[in-house]
Amino acid sequence: MKKHNFSAGPCILPQEVLLKASEAVLDFNESGLSLIEISHRSKPFVDVMEKARALALELLNLEGRGYKVLFLQGGASTQFLMVALNLLEKRAGYLNTGTWSDKAINEAKIYDDIYEVASSKNANYNYIPKGYEIPTDYDYFHCTSNNTIFGTQMKSFPKCSIPMVCDMSSDIFSRQLDFSKFDLIYAGAQKNMGPAGTTLVVIKEEILGKVSRHIPSMMDYKVHINKSSMFNTPPVFAVYTSMLTLDWLKNLGGIAAIEKENEKKARLMYSEIDLNPLFKGFSAKEDRSYMNATFSLVNEDLKETFDTMWKEAGINGLNGHRSIGGYRASMYNALSLDSVKALVEVMSELESKA
Amino acid sequence: MKKHNFSAGPCILPQEVLLKASEAVLDFNESGLSLIEISHRSKPFVDVMEKARALALELLNLEGRGYKVLFLQGGASTQFLMVALNLLEKRAGYLNTGTWSDKAINEAKIYDDIYEVASSKNANYNYIPKGYEIPTDYDYFHCTSNNTIFGTQMKSFPKCSIPMVCDMSSDIFSRQLDFSKFDLIYAGAQKNMGPAGTTLVVIKEEILGKVSRHIPSMMDYKVHINKSSMFNTPPVFAVYTSMLTLDWLKNLGGIAAIEKENEKKARLMYSEIDLNPLFKGFSAKEDRSYMNATFSLVNEDLKETFDTMWKEAGINGLNGHRSIGGYRASMYNALSLDSVKALVEVMSELESKA
Repeated sequence: MKKHNFSAGPCILPQEVLLKASEAVLDFNESGLSLIEISHRSKPFVDVMEKARALALELLNLEGRGYKVLFLQGGASTQFLMVALNLLEKRAGYLNTGTWSDKAINEAKIYDDIYEVASSKNANYNYIPKGYEIPTDYDYFHCTSNNTIFGTQMKSFPKCSIPMVCDMSSDIFSRQLDFSKFDLIYAGAQKNMGPAGTTLVVIKEEILGKVSRHIPSMMDYKVHINKSSMFNTPPVFAVYTSMLTLDWLKNLGGIAAIEKENEKKARLMYSEIDLNPLFKGFSAKEDRSYMNATFSLVNEDLKETFDTMWKEAGINGLNGHRSIGGYRASMYNALSLDSVKALVEVMSELESKA
Repeated sequence: MKKHNFSAGPCILPQEVLLKASEAVLDFNESGLSLIEISHRSKPFVDVMEKARALALELLNLEGRGYKVLFLQGGASTQFLMVALNLLEKRAGYLNTGTWSDKAINEAKIYDDIYEVASSKNANYNYIPKGYEIPTDYDYFHCTSNNTIFGTQMKSFPKCSIPMVCDMSSDIFSRQLDFSKFDLIYAGAQKNMGPAGTTLVVIKEEILGKVSRHIPSMMDYKVHINKSSMFNTPPVFAVYTSMLTLDWLKNLGGIAAIEKENEKKARLMYSEIDLNPLFKGFSAKEDRSYMNATFSLVNEDLKETFDTMWKEAGINGLNGHRSIGGYRASMYNALSLDSVKALVEVMSELESKA
């Protein structure tokens, strides 16, 4: 039986994507060869890469607006560094909303001066700061749209007259936004896009070429853009599976359609957290993430009983991150409403038992 | 029908590895979850990573000798940069034996002074330079063991009193060497180890920590070593499939066993190139690669006929690299002797026709 997979990432992917990816590992498009044993310069794979890049632009509604799409390696952690190497000349502003923002700041600090425009660190990141000013003479502003660990999500983005860079690793393709407000978006694939091993970068080309440092080839967005994301051998399987997931999303009706599903799942989940007296939510209500719901038991004595119950119900990956403990229900695009229903049922069963 | 896959990389992998990898994408170890949708911090995946690291050390006979194994992202191209960032303080010596050596030199040059101890560039890299001196006061010496594009291979390695770094991307695990002579070995997975998307790094820990620069986290070998190659989400599928391939090799009898097979294949291939008057080899005989045989037709008029013939025989990936043209038969570990026999048969058929 397929499990209800609430894992925070790597996480659930659509079953039809897993089927196609599994098939391609044995025989890619009836070519008599596996996807992973053909040249990345061969037409069949170049077609995959081009389709993946085109689908990302199409789904984000960024076609014909000066953006380029890359599928790189090294995770969002490498982007923390690449953003600074490619864009930071004098000073940049960062919004600190959690562990990943903090890491992004630390990687960028190596090179130049970083200014935290605001931070919720003192409240263990349980809310999203608001009402801060972004200096207009900085090189760029950086924020994290969704904070996987703490379960908070930026519901709106600040007015920003300088380039806006956003780490959307954990909520890209999950909700409608005016993506053209952003100049650089990056996202590790392993939440809503595909398997671990590739990172999506969507970049407005005009913001590049403004720093004076020499950028090493593998760290240089321009080098990758000029080579159509094939400067060196790309992570073939991760790109292919991402393409399949983006195609699945398109066929489903795109971001508008999945957003409705994600809202239903999140409403059901948070409604149970709020109405069930045995549980309490972690993050500020107005900043609650639709991707990762963080909560805990009011009475820790019930932990063993609850843990046994959800495991018996075929639920997987519900433990919270060690930074905040408790539970975390990650409800990425591929998680069905039925899985949330199964979890909510276990929670209300616990209430009737207690 | 499975093709005879002579692709230069990504390239042929053992069929049983493809079967197991394909299965794991659907259901990993009968867990009810795909390999690519479980947490990389879960015990089943941590076990995969640890097994892959242990197998690499065991096959290279480097257990208990101060070496650490990493599975990183970014390809050998990222290693060109990481080697310099982690080891280069004043000056390093590089042996230039082909396109990849040249790229390694260019990436390292960004930071400090590089000295080419020798180069075969003037002869379009058709041989391996010999008899050069390696300065004893340099930070390290770098070489490329096998040159995929030109079809040359280092049959012996120089005496070296400074740390020796070797890019073994295209011949690692293919022949017996005293690997303890090397202080840092790196190899993109996509030839003899697995799919594109991860890079093996085997490093003698004691050579680290000797440069004064600050190294960004993702570029710092020590950071990755301290986190057991899990500083950030690793490329799960590529690591798993590499583990399967290393396990396949171990069960076959390890490097000693595969070396014998590789010798048989190379002898058959080069014997046909030398004896068939229609063909000529590209590289110096004493430096011929056992992995990539480069050759061309003496009379280019036969090209169309020959190309049709090998394609009809179910052969794939025989075209030479654009730098030297002609043909390239890549005979990595997973290619069977039967595939080489099939190619040789076509070559001799052409001779009897002509």
